[in-house]
Amino acid sequence: MDAPGTLANVRIVLSRPSHPGNIGSAARAMKTMGFSDLRLVAPRSFPDAQADALASGALDLLQHARVFETLGEALGDAVLAVGFSSRGRDLSHPPRALREAAPLLVAAASAGPVALVFGNETFGLTNEELACCQWLAVIPANPAYASLNLAAAVQVACYEVATTAAAFTPPPEPERTPATVEEVEAFFAHLERAMVASGFLDPAMPKRLMERMRRLFARAGLEREEVRFLRGMLAAFEKPRR
Amino acid sequence: MDAPGTLANVRIVLSRPSHPGNIGSAARAMKTMGFSDLRLVAPRSFPDAQADALASGALDLLQHARVFETLGEALGDAVLAVGFSSRGRDLSHPPRALREAAPLLVAAASAGPVALVFGNETFGLTNEELACCQWLAVIPANPAYASLNLAAAVQVACYEVATTAAAFTPPPEPERTPATVEEVEAFFAHLERAMVASGFLDPAMPKRLMERMRRLFARAGLEREEVRFLRGMLAAFEKPRR
Repeated sequence: MDAPGTLANVRIVLSRPSHPGNIGSAARAMKTMGFSDLRLVAPRSFPDAQADALASGALDLLQHARVFETLGEALGDAVLAVGFSSRGRDLSHPPRALREAAPLLVAAASAGPVALVFGNETFGLTNEELACCQWLAVIPANPAYASLNLAAAVQVACYEVATTAAAFTPPPEPERTPATVEEVEAFFAHLERAMVASGFLDPAMPKRLMERMRRLFARAGLEREEVRFLRGMLAAFEKPRR
Repeated sequence: MDAPGTLANVRIVLSRPSHPGNIGSAARAMKTMGFSDLRLVAPRSFPDAQADALASGALDLLQHARVFETLGEALGDAVLAVGFSSRGRDLSHPPRALREAAPLLVAAASAGPVALVFGNETFGLTNEELACCQWLAVIPANPAYASLNLAAAVQVACYEVATTAAAFTPPPEPERTPATVEEVEAFFAHLERAMVASGFLDPAMPKRLMERMRRLFARAGLEREEVRFLRGMLAAFEKPRR
């Protein structure tokens, strides 16, 4: 999947945001997940110093943000508009949980522009705004307190879409050089010798001690370097005490 | 899965947070996803009016938050501590992407207390703090700007864990009464009659028009009420114009 192209096709639309700080925080949330197309419908105050402050390293998104008078204009040539709501609605579209909606949304974004639409902090999306959307997405939340902050909702939505699009691979595992079976077996032989010599393991009554040791170290998956220092430690233990 | 029990077993630990506002926002993020056990290690300022303001409806979490001097004390009797980092580390544990870590984490939380550990806003987790954790979790992010706000990271982590635990069912679909096949067929017959009468459909050259109509309405999945008003509309079209 062409993940960067897919993310570039996703617009985040904030309709009638009241608090400029939320615009800045939303821009930061978007950028951390690789989105850049921010659109504002009739913001109460924009540009605004508080938005700039909270955008942190995502000032460029604010500088390129486009302001529209109506949601219809902001959607532009989108082929799919998804409204976000914290609750289902009696009328309108059946709500889809974000996790179920994300794969469909990513598929749509690979074909054309898609808009994720977030309403006002206090009132959410109006019925008129929802009528401009084809889907209603819901972030499942605590029914006793489902009030995600606007930028937090944008963060979760962008995270889910970016993760579904596999946009960013997690950091690579640190370089590991696993020990060979031969090295591990030499370690176990050394360990057994040392345990016998110390009196901890009685060859006449082994109590499955070596079996337990093998199971433990198998779970850990020994590295070559670790075998080396474990054997160094055993050698130190084997030295006669003064 | 006993989701509420699982979430109750998850502690969110903020280590050395600098900005009290972030503590409040993190509490709000936690509560929206059903978490309540907030622990703070050496916060710069707590309690704090700014934390209260940003907690919004999650003031109770701040009131019950516990403050510790060291991370070890905050972890308490946790059986698993997961450190969050925006980057992999050379030493320490191999990082796991949050989505892959979540099922393991939920499984662990069904057995005993689990801690999700977040470091200072600027410096993240120190190596000493990471050494207290068994795993390192990473929220995959834009490599050009991976700087999630602290509360945003808490929101995403809590969302992922709650969703994986299926803690909250999405809102139920609005009540729908689908039309019966009989009703739908009667509608198609009506539609065909009206199209022929209007001259739009020429029975001698049908151009697969009815087939296309059937495909369209099959996708939509007609409800009984919709069939009723569609047929009402057809009846209105059929009336001779004045």
